[in-house]
Amino acid sequence: MNLTLFREMNEPLIQQELSSLIQELNIPASLKDSMDYSLQAGGKRIRPILLLAVVQELGGSHPDALKVAAAIEMIHTYSLIHDDLPSMDNDDLRRGMPTNHKVYGEAVAILAGDALLTYSFGIVARLKHVSSDDKIRLIDLMSVSAGAEGMVGGQVLDIEGEEKKLTLAELEQVHRLKTGALLTFSIVAGAILGGATPEQMVALSKFGEHIGLAFQIQDDILDVTGTSQELGKTAGKDESSEKSTYPGLLTLPKAKEKLDYHASEALAAIQSLGGNPQLLNELTALIVERNN
Amino acid sequence: MNLTLFREMNEPLIQQELSSLIQELNIPASLKDSMDYSLQAGGKRIRPILLLAVVQELGGSHPDALKVAAAIEMIHTYSLIHDDLPSMDNDDLRRGMPTNHKVYGEAVAILAGDALLTYSFGIVARLKHVSSDDKIRLIDLMSVSAGAEGMVGGQVLDIEGEEKKLTLAELEQVHRLKTGALLTFSIVAGAILGGATPEQMVALSKFGEHIGLAFQIQDDILDVTGTSQELGKTAGKDESSEKSTYPGLLTLPKAKEKLDYHASEALAAIQSLGGNPQLLNELTALIVERNN
Repeated sequence: MNLTLFREMNEPLIQQELSSLIQELNIPASLKDSMDYSLQAGGKRIRPILLLAVVQELGGSHPDALKVAAAIEMIHTYSLIHDDLPSMDNDDLRRGMPTNHKVYGEAVAILAGDALLTYSFGIVARLKHVSSDDKIRLIDLMSVSAGAEGMVGGQVLDIEGEEKKLTLAELEQVHRLKTGALLTFSIVAGAILGGATPEQMVALSKFGEHIGLAFQIQDDILDVTGTSQELGKTAGKDESSEKSTYPGLLTLPKAKEKLDYHASEALAAIQSLGGNPQLLNELTALIVERNN
Repeated sequence: MNLTLFREMNEPLIQQELSSLIQELNIPASLKDSMDYSLQAGGKRIRPILLLAVVQELGGSHPDALKVAAAIEMIHTYSLIHDDLPSMDNDDLRRGMPTNHKVYGEAVAILAGDALLTYSFGIVARLKHVSSDDKIRLIDLMSVSAGAEGMVGGQVLDIEGEEKKLTLAELEQVHRLKTGALLTFSIVAGAILGGATPEQMVALSKFGEHIGLAFQIQDDILDVTGTSQELGKTAGKDESSEKSTYPGLLTLPKAKEKLDYHASEALAAIQSLGGNPQLLNELTALIVERNN
């Protein structure tokens, strides 16, 4: 199956899963609306698609894959809601729409983020077709990837990095944590659900790390080369805030070289899976060539 | 064992567990300091003590009880950090000390809360002496108690309630969720670790619900009768903000009657445990009679 068809099939299912998970909650209307608003705002659904693609490449499907994919998307979405707050990035727009706190106020936005994060662990705990041992593996890794040693730690480093010029190694560490950890977890979660062998797990983890870095380098490149309309957010924001970026530290052509390096390492990692991992090959190309 | 001795023995152990759990994290210094600051700020450790007391009443000890107690205290602490933010309660003082965002700034305070919440699930997932099935029970209930259908939902109702006069039933619902859910979970978690029978679980859940309500009614009463020095926070704040409270809706004497009712229901529930649940009896008295 090619990636375009795979996405067309799965994106509505991801959307539906997110909706029904929120609708089944018996909670105050404002909180439900706020959680739902940011989940429905869409975006590329890269993490759920990566998870589902890995399950597919490993030979099929898993009845709980969509639920785990939705849990990860909730974590990603909570992180965006909190990152957009006035005391953080102070963004009014996200994916071309007003940010959560602009619509629901800061208090409810913070709480909607908290609720999405908390719910994601409950969703995994209540899966019907995964053993308790595998649920615990998923929850353990999810907590590490999303928490202080992963995404949250990366966000702290990112904020602190705004006040100084980072080295390339420091910038890479920010991205490994802030974006890479949860992207890699999406892939590893797919590997667990798909019953990967230890060798496949190693290959997919390596794929995840390189894909995560490629994703962020392309993000930085787009901030220089893209338009606000394409990005659905303010372009050139990094440069105007003097934030350390790959093009800023390396020049644009060298940043593109680095992007190509991580993309080719990602592709090399998955060749060892055997077969023809078309979806993951195409996803790598998509991440490198995307314009938003 | 009496409660005074039990607390004197266990409070340093809880403190030590919290410290060592934070110290073992490999994370940015500012984030670690911020997480540690609010955990060390102390407080009554009611939730960990409740959990440990239940384990004790059920006949002894559990090698992972302190870790679960610490995880619950982290969730409680994260909720205080977020509640104190300028966009929420806008409190400068907590337990007589500057609130987290006053010391570390709003961005790091939000992220420290996020990190504590995320870590708490990882701590339970990595317990050494609990079966995967029981870990999943704990994580499932923890997610519900702390999330949109529990504590976070209660905080939303509490914020929305500030703008209108609540009925007694609405006020009770706020408290059941905002404070009661996590208090009850502390007790149920102790019951799971202590190997409670189904009958004991029912009795302890009932105990938890009444203790939770008693706790909050006493909180409201103290806001009227206590001094800022005793409370370590601004007294009379509820009245000056025209917030719905038990004394406000019922008069002070009727609020005290209601407090006594829930305390005696709590005591009645635990008598069915058999033996002489001295620690839980004394904890009930402590919650009713405390002055901060």
